[in-house]
Amino acid sequence: MPFTYNRIIHFQDTDAAGVVYFTNILSMCHEAYEASLLAANINLKTFFSNAAVAVPIVHADVDFLRPLYCGDEVQISLQPRLLGDSEFEVEYQVLGERLMAKAVTRHVCIGGDRKRLVLGDELVGWLRLWEGVDNELPSQ
Amino acid sequence: MPFTYNRIIHFQDTDAAGVVYFTNILSMCHEAYEASLLAANINLKTFFSNAAVAVPIVHADVDFLRPLYCGDEVQISLQPRLLGDSEFEVEYQVLGERLMAKAVTRHVCIGGDRKRLVLGDELVGWLRLWEGVDNELPSQ
Amino acid sequence: MPFTYNRIIHFQDTDAAGVVYFTNILSMCHEAYEASLLAANINLKTFFSNAAVAVPIVHADVDFLRPLYCGDEVQISLQPRLLGDSEFEVEYQVLGERLMAKAVTRHVCIGGDRKRLVLGDELVGWLRLWEGVDNELPSQ
Amino acid sequence: MPFTYNRIIHFQDTDAAGVVYFTNILSMCHEAYEASLLAANINLKTFFSNAAVAVPIVHADVDFLRPLYCGDEVQISLQPRLLGDSEFEVEYQVLGERLMAKAVTRHVCIGGDRKRLVLGDELVGWLRLWEGVDNELPSQ
Repeated sequence: MPFTYNRIIHFQDTDAAGVVYFTNILSMCHEAYEASLLAANINLKTFFSNAAVAVPIVHADVDFLRPLYCGDEVQISLQPRLLGDSEFEVEYQVLGERLMAKAVTRHVCIGGDRKRLVLGDELVGWLRLWEGVDNELPSQ
Repeated sequence: MPFTYNRIIHFQDTDAAGVVYFTNILSMCHEAYEASLLAANINLKTFFSNAAVAVPIVHADVDFLRPLYCGDEVQISLQPRLLGDSEFEVEYQVLGERLMAKAVTRHVCIGGDRKRLVLGDELVGWLRLWEGVDNELPSQ
Repeated sequence: MPFTYNRIIHFQDTDAAGVVYFTNILSMCHEAYEASLLAANINLKTFFSNAAVAVPIVHADVDFLRPLYCGDEVQISLQPRLLGDSEFEVEYQVLGERLMAKAVTRHVCIGGDRKRLVLGDELVGWLRLWEGVDNELPSQ
Repeated sequence: MPFTYNRIIHFQDTDAAGVVYFTNILSMCHEAYEASLLAANINLKTFFSNAAVAVPIVHADVDFLRPLYCGDEVQISLQPRLLGDSEFEVEYQVLGERLMAKAVTRHVCIGGDRKRLVLGDELVGWLRLWEGVDNELPSQ
């Protein structure tokens, strides 16, 4: 089941070309990611400023299909996917009238020494909550 | 009757000191202003990119009373006040556990030649909707 | 010959994890792109707000190799590459002590109706200025 | 002697009205403040993420006199002024063709418990370097 996040395009999101500045699409996707963590009862303040364990983004890509304007309503749908013991990616679809943009972020769990760590229970719980059915084991 | 806008502090709002970067308080106040325009049925896309009539901010000030962290919930309460035919200001209170910040923006209505214009009916309607009782004429 | 752009990491670029917020790496790459246009005598105001011809970004991707901190000095090296009559991409390397990040943006030239247009002389001139030698036809 | 900082307006600084988004003027002033600290040999990474001593902004105000466009060159001139043992303010003038904007930020030195601390030698040295002659005691 994907998580969904609703957002109105702010004036600050736009640039002098009259549409959303490209990197702000990724920032909105990150807002959706934060909302999905919050919905899994994860404390954002602790999660994002923990010096001992962090899951920084190591890769992001984004396709811009249609322009977005100030006041536009979008729904961002998000689905995480486990890639390994210490790594996951999140797929985002930004929906307006139609599909406006899609993006992926890849995250790696590291310790204070920046070496890989196995993902903790909290994040695994979050993954289980919002990941797609294709990740689930077939029921016998 | 003031307008109120609810907002969760995003990771992007913060800086390496661990709290909200100072100018982002003003950006959140502007989000509240946009939401109040939308609630008065004003089309944001047209309103903010109209080359013939604009109401740019000519002055802003802000007091930072307490720090805000990622994940904090705030309620921004906003109240506009007419200052003249072509000018108004908006007062904002950013409430968390207590009053976290307060701000003012002053706006002047101008035409494409950047000369002052009298505020249009749409904005006067918005002002009447959210302005304080102290602006109302006493009933006889 | 790649174009290079020097930049110091600002406090605003950082987030509560103490390092540069991920989308700001792409924004810095865009700054480098703007500087390379300016260095080819392209008027940025006209270029970015032209309603008749625009070259919006249709795709971006970025790899984050090492964290960047407030005050860090980076050199962004940039190289455009023609992909077709109406399309080009730009590769960026963000260098600090070592390679900190790399990114790509893909741009398509469109008209006011959002249909593809052939790239104008101005942009072709910019491409010729900064593109790699591998793009040049072999001399006979 | 004021400190001066040169800056070109980036595309990201602008909004759909075609000019610099209002809070970005304050962010540029903060960039100038950071550059003035760096010019006084202050380590920005340590300065801005020190949990034991910080000088957060408690007040800011800004006047927007003329619009700024993508590609515009500005010179920000900055002058700090001591207000007390634990407090200073910084005045900024944003110069383009003419005076485009002016701003003030007020900073208070606090410890980890958020109680006031006397400004350290490093900051006093920075103040002495860039403050105006009107702050100096008359020589006998």
